[in-house]
Order: sequence, then C-alpha cells, then structure tokens
Amino acid sequence: MSGSTYGKSFIITTWGESHGKGIGVVIDGCPAGLPLNESDIQAFLNRRKPGQTKYSTPRKEEDKVSILSGVFEGRTTGTPISIVVHNENQRSSDYSEIASYYRPGHADYTYDQKYGFRDYRGGGRSSGRETIGRVAAGAIASALLRELGVTVYAYTKSIGPVTIDYKKCRKDFTITSPFFMPDPEASAMAEEYVMQKLNENDSVGGIIECIVTGMPAGIGQPVFDKLDADLAKAVMSIGAVKGVEIGDGFASAQHTGSENNDSFYYDGTGKLAKLSNHAGGIAGGISDGFEIVLRAAIKPTPSIARLQHTINKNKENIEISVKGRHDPVIVPRAVVVVESMVAVTLLDHLIMGMSSRLDYIKDFYRGR
Amino acid sequence: MSGSTYGKSFIITTWGESHGKGIGVVIDGCPAGLPLNESDIQAFLNRRKPGQTKYSTPRKEEDKVSILSGVFEGRTTGTPISIVVHNENQRSSDYSEIASYYRPGHADYTYDQKYGFRDYRGGGRSSGRETIGRVAAGAIASALLRELGVTVYAYTKSIGPVTIDYKKCRKDFTITSPFFMPDPEASAMAEEYVMQKLNENDSVGGIIECIVTGMPAGIGQPVFDKLDADLAKAVMSIGAVKGVEIGDGFASAQHTGSENNDSFYYDGTGKLAKLSNHAGGIAGGISDGFEIVLRAAIKPTPSIARLQHTINKNKENIEISVKGRHDPVIVPRAVVVVESMVAVTLLDHLIMGMSSRLDYIKDFYRGR
Amino acid sequence: MSGSTYGKSFIITTWGESHGKGIGVVIDGCPAGLPLNESDIQAFLNRRKPGQTKYSTPRKEEDKVSILSGVFEGRTTGTPISIVVHNENQRSSDYSEIASYYRPGHADYTYDQKYGFRDYRGGGRSSGRETIGRVAAGAIASALLRELGVTVYAYTKSIGPVTIDYKKCRKDFTITSPFFMPDPEASAMAEEYVMQKLNENDSVGGIIECIVTGMPAGIGQPVFDKLDADLAKAVMSIGAVKGVEIGDGFASAQHTGSENNDSFYYDGTGKLAKLSNHAGGIAGGISDGFEIVLRAAIKPTPSIARLQHTINKNKENIEISVKGRHDPVIVPRAVVVVESMVAVTLLDHLIMGMSSRLDYIKDFYRGR
Amino acid sequence: MSGSTYGKSFIITTWGESHGKGIGVVIDGCPAGLPLNESDIQAFLNRRKPGQTKYSTPRKEEDKVSILSGVFEGRTTGTPISIVVHNENQRSSDYSEIASYYRPGHADYTYDQKYGFRDYRGGGRSSGRETIGRVAAGAIASALLRELGVTVYAYTKSIGPVTIDYKKCRKDFTITSPFFMPDPEASAMAEEYVMQKLNENDSVGGIIECIVTGMPAGIGQPVFDKLDADLAKAVMSIGAVKGVEIGDGFASAQHTGSENNDSFYYDGTGKLAKLSNHAGGIAGGISDGFEIVLRAAIKPTPSIARLQHTINKNKENIEISVKGRHDPVIVPRAVVVVESMVAVTLLDHLIMGMSSRLDYIKDFYRGR
Repeated sequence: MSGSTYGKSFIITTWGESHGKGIGVVIDGCPAGLPLNESDIQAFLNRRKPGQTKYSTPRKEEDKVSILSGVFEGRTTGTPISIVVHNENQRSSDYSEIASYYRPGHADYTYDQKYGFRDYRGGGRSSGRETIGRVAAGAIASALLRELGVTVYAYTKSIGPVTIDYKKCRKDFTITSPFFMPDPEASAMAEEYVMQKLNENDSVGGIIECIVTGMPAGIGQPVFDKLDADLAKAVMSIGAVKGVEIGDGFASAQHTGSENNDSFYYDGTGKLAKLSNHAGGIAGGISDGFEIVLRAAIKPTPSIARLQHTINKNKENIEISVKGRHDPVIVPRAVVVVESMVAVTLLDHLIMGMSSRLDYIKDFYRGR
Repeated sequence: MSGSTYGKSFIITTWGESHGKGIGVVIDGCPAGLPLNESDIQAFLNRRKPGQTKYSTPRKEEDKVSILSGVFEGRTTGTPISIVVHNENQRSSDYSEIASYYRPGHADYTYDQKYGFRDYRGGGRSSGRETIGRVAAGAIASALLRELGVTVYAYTKSIGPVTIDYKKCRKDFTITSPFFMPDPEASAMAEEYVMQKLNENDSVGGIIECIVTGMPAGIGQPVFDKLDADLAKAVMSIGAVKGVEIGDGFASAQHTGSENNDSFYYDGTGKLAKLSNHAGGIAGGISDGFEIVLRAAIKPTPSIARLQHTINKNKENIEISVKGRHDPVIVPRAVVVVESMVAVTLLDHLIMGMSSRLDYIKDFYRGR
Repeated sequence: MSGSTYGKSFIITTWGESHGKGIGVVIDGCPAGLPLNESDIQAFLNRRKPGQTKYSTPRKEEDKVSILSGVFEGRTTGTPISIVVHNENQRSSDYSEIASYYRPGHADYTYDQKYGFRDYRGGGRSSGRETIGRVAAGAIASALLRELGVTVYAYTKSIGPVTIDYKKCRKDFTITSPFFMPDPEASAMAEEYVMQKLNENDSVGGIIECIVTGMPAGIGQPVFDKLDADLAKAVMSIGAVKGVEIGDGFASAQHTGSENNDSFYYDGTGKLAKLSNHAGGIAGGISDGFEIVLRAAIKPTPSIARLQHTINKNKENIEISVKGRHDPVIVPRAVVVVESMVAVTLLDHLIMGMSSRLDYIKDFYRGR
Repeated sequence: MSGSTYGKSFIITTWGESHGKGIGVVIDGCPAGLPLNESDIQAFLNRRKPGQTKYSTPRKEEDKVSILSGVFEGRTTGTPISIVVHNENQRSSDYSEIASYYRPGHADYTYDQKYGFRDYRGGGRSSGRETIGRVAAGAIASALLRELGVTVYAYTKSIGPVTIDYKKCRKDFTITSPFFMPDPEASAMAEEYVMQKLNENDSVGGIIECIVTGMPAGIGQPVFDKLDADLAKAVMSIGAVKGVEIGDGFASAQHTGSENNDSFYYDGTGKLAKLSNHAGGIAGGISDGFEIVLRAAIKPTPSIARLQHTINKNKENIEISVKGRHDPVIVPRAVVVVESMVAVTLLDHLIMGMSSRLDYIKDFYRGR
C-alpha cells in the first residue's frame, strides 16, 4: 500500500531510486497487438534527459531503456511489460554530507519521519529520476492513444513571470526551445530571466499546460473517479507540482455563471460545437468531446547554491548550500512527465468506457 | 468500475440520485469502537442543507439521516456502516422540459453520451445531493480524526472578487456568515456582490480554503498516492471544483527557490519549527507535521435564469432559461463537502501509515 | 479495508447485520440499459428464504427487496444500484445468553478477537443473512449474463453421504426438491438422512455443484486474477464453504496426465470440441469455451441442540446447547448464493475481457 | 487489469515470460527496516529450481536473483523492491512446432482466444517460470513473518495414490526427499510410482499441504476478503492447482455438526485450547489463533511424451507427442510456491489487522 501503482485498467507500477541499480516500471493491462519497440520509449525518455542545455544539470544520464517482457515479435502480448533503465555513474560518495541534514524544500525530513531512515543518495526514491518509469509508461499510452486518434500535447506556458498565449503557440518550436516553450520571443525572455536567477544562485518555477485533442465524448466516471479528479491526482503526484486546474480553473472562481457556461450549438454543417470551452472539455467528470485543457503549477527547484537555514540529525541549527549543479528550473523536464501522466489517465478511462452500456457489451459478445 | 468508491483503508461508496428514493453511503473499514450516533452525522449534513439563507435555494430538503448497520450499542462494530437519507418531495413533473435539452454548464450532455440516457430529474446522479453521502462519511472521519488530535477546518476564502485573509479569520463567525466566510466585513461585501449578480439573473463562484492542524509528520505515500495527490483527487471529484492547490500552489510557480523553500530550525525550546510554510505541510507526498493548507476553486452555479443558447435532443439550436430558484453561489454549501473529503483522505492515510516500518508491526504484534 | 467489496468492474459492496435495521448491497459498474425491477431480484432472494420446508428454520423472514437508486424508468442507469431488505422481528432478547459465550463452529470468538466486541444478535455480520446482498447482486448479474447467452446453474450434489450424478440431473426438479437436489430418488434418501440426524440433535453438510454454459472462450486473466482463482475466492468467501474445486479438482491429483488432459478435435461439422472436460472449462486461468464446472464443500450447520463444550467471557469452561430451531443443513439455502457469486465473478471477467486486444479497442472507438 | 498484481497492503506485481529476457516481481508495501539480501531470496528460489533430481526436468536454469531497488545498506527502505532473474539459454528454435498447434492441458488455446496470438516459447507467460516472482516475494514475506513469530511450512502430502499422515511427518526430511515428502517410506513409494508412470510416458499429480503456526487470533476480514477466501484465491492462482480446501475441507461436507465443531476449553494452566481443529484455524474468515491448515490439489504435468489428439491452427485434427524432457510431476517444485502465496497472503492480512480497532489507532498515534 505504499502507492507505487496507478490506474485501474492500464496499470503502471514504478520502482527505483536515483542511485540504486536502476529505475523501471511494470505496465499491466496494455492490450495485445500494439506495435512497440524500445526506440518508441527512448524518444519519450530523451525528452526528460538532462544535460541537453545550459539550463539543465550537466549530469550525464544516458537513460537507455530495455523492455524485459510483454513484447513478442514486435507487438505487445497483453501480459505485463517490464521496462528498466539501469543507473550509471552512481557516485555515492557525493552524498555523505546530505545524509546528515534535511535540505529545505526536499523530502529528506518527511521520508525519515515515515520510514525511520532513507536512501539519501540523490534523493533516493523522491528523486526526479523516479519519473523515468512514468514517462516510459506514458510513451506506450501515447502510442495507443494515437491509434485511437487522441493526441496529448504538453508545453511550458510560464517560466516565472514570462507567460505565453496558447493561441500564439508554435508547436514545431517546442523542442527547439530550451524550455519547451513554443514561442520564440517568450522563450528568449525566459532564458534571460532564468540566467539572471541562476547568477543569483537561485531557481525558478513555472506552469505547464496540457491540451488533449480527439478525445471522444462520454469518457470518465461520474463520482469519485471523475476524469478531471483522476487527472488532478495523476498530475499532482508528480514531485514538484503544487496546483492543478482544468479549463479556466482558478479564474472561473471569479467568473459569473453567464460568463463561465459553455453554450452548445449546431454549426452550419449540423456539427455539434460550443461557443466557448471554459470547462476544459469535461463536465460532471465526463469528457464532452472538446479539447481537454489542464495546467500544473511547478515550484522552483529546491536545490539552490544560496545559503539556507536548516537542521541536522543531531538536532542542531545549521546553514547549508546545496552543492553540485542542479537544474535551475524543473519545468522543461517535467513537460513530458505531465504529458505522460495525462496519457496514462486518458487511456485508463477510455478502456473503462467500453463497458458503460449493456448494448456495448452485447454488441461485443454477439457471435463470440 | 463506475468509480463510486473512494479510499483504500477507510473506504466510502456513495449511491443515489437527486429524485430517486434516497441518497446514501456505505463506509467500510471504519475501526471498531468509535462512539457514533445519528446526531453526529446530522450536524454535518445540516451544514450543507439548503434553504437556510436567501442565498441558497428555498427548496425544502429535510435530509434526515439513518444509520442502518455497523453501529451496535452506540459504537462502531468495524463492519460496514450503511447510511441513508430518504428523498422527499420528489416532484418529477418539474423536470419534463429539462429531459429534452442539455443545460449549459451541467452534465446532461456528457451523461447521455456515456450512458445513452439519464435520470434527468434534478440532475440525477450529478446533482449536488450526491454529496450527502460524502458529508455523512466526512462526519465519521472527522469524529475519528478528533480522537487522534487532528482538526480539519474549511471556510469560504473568496466569493467572486471578495477575498479574505486567513490571518484575520474569525472561526467563530463561520457559521454566522451566510457564506461560511469568517470575516464579518468581507462577508457583508460578498452579500452585496451576490445580491447584485442575483438581480442580474446571474451567479458567482469562489474559493474554499481548508486548514488541517495536528497532523503527525510522516503520513502519506511517496509516489502516486502522495498525500497531496490524493487530496487533489478527493477535492477535484466534488462537482463544481475546477482547480486545487496545496500551500502556495499556483503562486509558487512565480516564486524563486529561495523564496519558496521552507527552512527548518529548532526554536528556543528545542522544538522543531519552520520559518515558513509555502509547501502547505506536505513534502514529497508526505506530511511534515505542520499545517496542511489546500484551496479549491468553485465555479459559478451553472443554473441561471438568464437566457442561454443550447441544443435539444432533436438536434435543434434553442434558447433556454433555467427555471426554479437555484443557489446563486455553490461555495457556502460546498465548504463542508471539501472538509469531508479532506477528512476522509487524511484518515485513510493515517490508517495506512501504521505499517510503514517493521518496528511498528513488531511492536503491534508483540505478545499478541 | 474490511473487505466488504468484491469485483473490479462489476463491483458489489454488502452491508448489514442479522438483527440491525436491514441488509443491503450497492452495485457499482452495472452497465446502463439493463431492464430491471424488484421482482427480478425478489425471485432470487426467495430461493434463499427460510421457512419453506421442514428442513429449514421456521423463522419468518419476509426479505422484501427495495431498489433505492440506479434504476430509472425500468432500466439501469449505469450509476450505483442500492438495494435494501429491511429486517423484521428483531427480538434481541433471544440473544442475551449468546452474548456471554462463544458458540463452537461460529465466528463469535474470532470477531471478539478482531474487533474487541461484537453484535451478538443472530450472529451479527457473520450471519447467513449477510448473503442477501450477494444474492441480490447475483440476480442482476444473472440477468445480464442471460443477455449474453451465459447460464449459471447451481444445485445440491451431496447431502452427507448421498450424492447424485450430474448426468442423471433433472433440472426441472431442482425447485421441487426441499434440498434443491435435482434427482427425486437421491432427494428422498437425503430427506431420510437429514431427518435422522435432526432427531439426533445433529446437523449435516454437503456439496454444491455449479455448471456454467455459454461462456465464451478467452475470458479470464493469466496470473493472479485467473478466472478459477477468482471463482475460488468468490465461493470460499461464503460463510460455510470449506473447499472449492474446478473440473475434476481433488480427483485430478490422483490422475495421470494421459487421463487428465482434455484433447481438442474438430467434429464432423468442423466445430471445435473436446474429448473430455477434466479441466472444467478453464485453462491457464482463461475460459476455453466449454462448460465451467465448480464444486463447493459446505460444512454442517454449527448450531446444534446437542450439548457442546465451550468457554465463556469469564474464562470458564462451560457446556451449552444452542437454542432455537436452526437449519439442520445449510446446503440448500446456499445453492443460490454459490450461483450468485459465480455469476458476479463471470460478469466481472466478461466486462474486463472487452479490452484485451488493441483491435477490440480500435473497433469500439472507430467513429466515436 | 490483466491481473498480475496481488495483495492490498503487501502488494506484489509479477512479470516475465519463460523465454523473454527475464522474470521478476515488484513488491510494494514492504515495511522499512527489514534486513534483506539476495541470498535470502536465492534460498527460496533454489527450492523451485529444476534439474536437482531425476524427477525434474534436466533443463539448466540458474535463476540467479538480483535486487534492483528498495534495499539500502542491507535493509528494506519501505519503497518498492524490484527483483529480477534473467533468463538464460533461451533457445527459441525448440518451439517452432509448438507455435502451430494447441497442447492438451496447456493454456495455448485459451491465450490465443484471449489475446489473438501468444509468446509460444516455453509457454510464455503461462510457464511455470512465472512463479519465480511469487517465490521471491514469498521469501520476503516469510522473512517478515518470522520476525512476527509466524511460520509457514508446506510439504507434499500425496503423489498420486501415495499419501502421508502429517502426524508422522519428519520436517527435517523434507529437503532430502526428491518430492519434498517428509516421510522416508512414503517418499520411496512415491519414487517407485513416479518412475513407473514416467516409463509409461505419463505423468502424475498430487496434493500439497500447508501448515501455519504462530498466527495471532483475530486476523482476516469478515465478508469477501475472508482469510480463507484470500488463501483460496492465492493458491488457486498457481498454474496447476485445481482445488483448495481449508481444515477438513471436502471431508467436512460428510461430517455432522457434532463431529465438525471445534470446542474451546481452558486447559489446566488456563490457556485457551480447542478439542479439535476441523476448521483449520479460521472461523468466519478470521484466524482463531490455532494452526491454519490448507491443501491444494495439483494436476498431473500436461506435457507427456505419449501420443495425444489435438488440433492445429489450420483447423486440422492432428496427433502430437510433447517433445523434450519435462517434470513427470509438478508437485515438488510447487511446494515452495504454495508456501510463498500463503506467506504473502498472511502478511497482507496481518498488516491490515493493525487498524481494526479505534484503540489500536489511538495507541499508535498517541504522542506522535
């Protein structure tokens, strides 16, 4: 019950510590027959790899993926897919000091409170490397969603005070931007801002937006397992996320009903449309067939070189400076993680959606 | 798998439609020996009852609770507690018109897409009355949390543009305010604002804040079932909630690391303290022993008297005005629902927290 | 986590004590559109009602069922179905003595060990009345299975030493037999045997067999949630069951491979057939499309008038005679319970079976 | 939802195919602080290794275990433990023929029906090698149970017609016997019987018994998740198991109540005792503190050299002889698998048992 499993139909279980032998995921419930090879997954993992720009840690993490089970002759077999990324260059000696105190903004203290001790090397299980398993699962979920015509796209909406407008978003520029910020001008401004804070031995946060297109209407569950509730959990479970909103989110709290309601209409061709999408594609926990829009607030990197107060295990007040070079901003590398968790959640609900009506089940089993 | 069950250890399953025979909840996993009677639950339910002020629907809903099982001689037995509130005054005739079209901002359309048809009377399962089961469960969870020294307190932080500061919060005023807004001045301003929008045949939204005190450190799970992730799901699963944040939430996205990190220190008496609580009492998914702070964005009531565009089942564009008097603001009645979902989630994690270490288990079974 | 919920897709949660206000079940995940009314469920409940023959307790239990939610205009809505049977004639005074000691063969002692106290009236939660919720759910599952062409039929195979051969089974006689034993001759012999033991103030056990026809091939899961494993749990979770076997079961332990293997062949018309069905319709946890055959061993009624040794709460050795008239044999009333648990389990797996292949999912969502 | 995860608190997820890259398990919910190293697990795995006697396949399977996560400085950390055994000598060429037809008694046909195709090499996911993950998890569960004073011991009770009496069981002889049959005389007779059947190109089945000592009273859940129901599922989910019984099991169906009830009494020293243990240590789904006794029926090995009828994928009737040397009896190698599944299930319930009463929870959190 330590909660390393997520999903009800497409079920992922992650394992691994930053400086253990490896990081991995087991995916149970992936339907049989999906074409899959390691390069499909590697492409996703590469999007979260560090060391690609000056704004991410220069640590060398190759993160080479291996599929150990569940794929035969290039297709998924329907049985569990086990994926592993072996850790390299685990220089545990770097972490002798960290073992003795609690870094502000990290989970060092809470892990010790829960477990009595912790694998202190590189954050152990609370390391950002834990997301490797999520992203590998997300790559598979995304491949399957593509087969169903569903596309999940996440990007950096804000870095500190620099925010872009989705309407001006240039998707093709996403991977060119060091921040996955699909607006060249804003991306350049963000570079300047991050550089400044980095020089001040500080770090910054930001906002990731995720847009889903092609989602059929009628997917989700009506009460606790609402599609938006599960998306909120999925995204909030990512390390540095401190807030999640759907559609207009917190802004809708200041709107009136007449401003916030989305009116349906049939357009000239008789196709169903909405005058607006303040709801972000979900009503009553169930998709309405329009774009699903979700945002996640990412806190600034807690590891900063600036001097900070904290305590050590001898119950002393001390001052520390977190050594080593760390990402001055977590946001860019978290983009693919948000996208992955959204993909896994949508797929889970799409599978569950196949049995909501008796006629669906009867159609399926007719003649079988 | 239609997702009407929530929790892993303290497990609640709700059922019931707005105009069916009743609404209820089954609670499985409530430990034996908790003193419990119907008035404990009724007190919670009364906090969400309508018709108490001019800002809530004047519909008469008595909402009288009955405990059908799981309590013997005034104490819980450890077996499932079944609770029912029978519906009264179900005048289905009121809803003949609603059956034919899809109200903007409601789940009418998405339910039809999912299930092929719907109980259209009063919103059926998507009605706010569904929360009766949650609140009844929340009453029990809260009673149990009190035994452990944990207090959950939710209140209205914002109504439209009117926001209060928790530091000036007067808890004793909470139930006096028609909006559960514990600041007489702000509450009066909110009244004025709501009255104005009501006169414009419109509705308003707002923000609920929930503060938890007395939570032990070390509670939560490290990966998917993070305490904040589960809280996000729990709260986002409430009908009108469009966003959830923990601690500084979305604001932290604009902070720097040095601003956002909470520094630990030992105060003069040797007691552990923090210089700030931007994290909102949770780090790495696990409680740090300080106040847990959570906010939920509530959208404006979708039912408004103002004329709105929509479609009907004959695939025609029409204009409608939602008849009957509805709450011009959902926020006040949702306060106890947020509090209940937070209480259920915390208790669930507290129970799970008993087995995180071998020594805990050995101590427990020593001599048994 | 007190385990009152069963199923992953078609999920049932039962509640209620023998002498509380009522007994019930909430069914979540029943697909929308199934025609359902109370008489469908009542017919199943009547099969477990006592007082119908001299071999069952003459206690008057009307067991009138009410559907409180999840059905609208005669069809299931896809949302939770809440079912209640109110208890009548709860004369708690009868049970004052039982409160003080532990009846052999009952759960009195183990409940006290687990919960610290118990609702001792009529066995409380461990009463056979708990199965009312299971049977109500079974009625709904069976109705749905019928729509898919799957039939579940359980009957009494043995009463003590009297055993019948399924090949000579006369299904039409099942409800005529006071033991649901579809063989007039064997049923008469069983009557004689039970009468004799009843006169000796004793009770008897027996075996229930359940046969499923029309089950499609390919249903079940390959590892822990094997179809036979879930059936074993479902049936073993019924109060008095002490053993479960599939196909040849324990007899297969004494067979050789050449005797036990079922050979496939195509018959004259090109239809797939098997030379035998020792496996009982399941291989590797997955249905093979032939009859599923399962047997459950039911222990003799523990409540007997004969004097027995036991202990009381004052830690004294005492002798007791269980007062009141009890069923001298549980088997007949358990037949419909076994049938119900099998039906619920099969339906659960049939729903899950819809998503085992990518092409199934693509076919389903094509054009949606 | 393909069911490769088992347990609610101590949760195991297995993966891997016979001839894929490896076989493994992820264990989530193992409490922190348990001393653990690879040799603890290896010792368990060695008990199921083939090639040790002439009665098991001479295939060389080294089955060397690696722990990839969840252990730090020799103790479990509380986070997921990932264990892998890499496969060796996967000569897929051996299996070209098997790909074309369905072996009687195997899951070839049902896998194809479910998934559309299968990894046919060595049985793929339905291979006995799947149990490696279960046994690795069982080793850890057993280590933890030992810390709580609970011992799980499984042995071969029958091989075909040769049965031993537990009262004459010589535990020390268990590993000496090629069949894990702790009775030298019976073991020798079994050898003779198996040798005879092997010479007839046939195979045999048998019965495994598992005895648990030191289990505290009050563990288990009262309704669906009864301790015996979960044990039945756990054991029935092992490949070749066709029946499970608790205590007297099927024999109790022929007993009378006076024969079958276990009477409690206080012995001379005031210690609680029972005159008998027909119930096998569980009443109403909850342990009574006495020995838990369980038996599993194991079918004969389906792979036999003798000629058998079957069909191929071209829909033709054919005759086959399963090539290669296979275990003539599965029973001995399944002993440790049964023991492992029982250990995992008991531990799961012991963890859950910590929260059954309010006073347990209050005691735990007092002062935290």
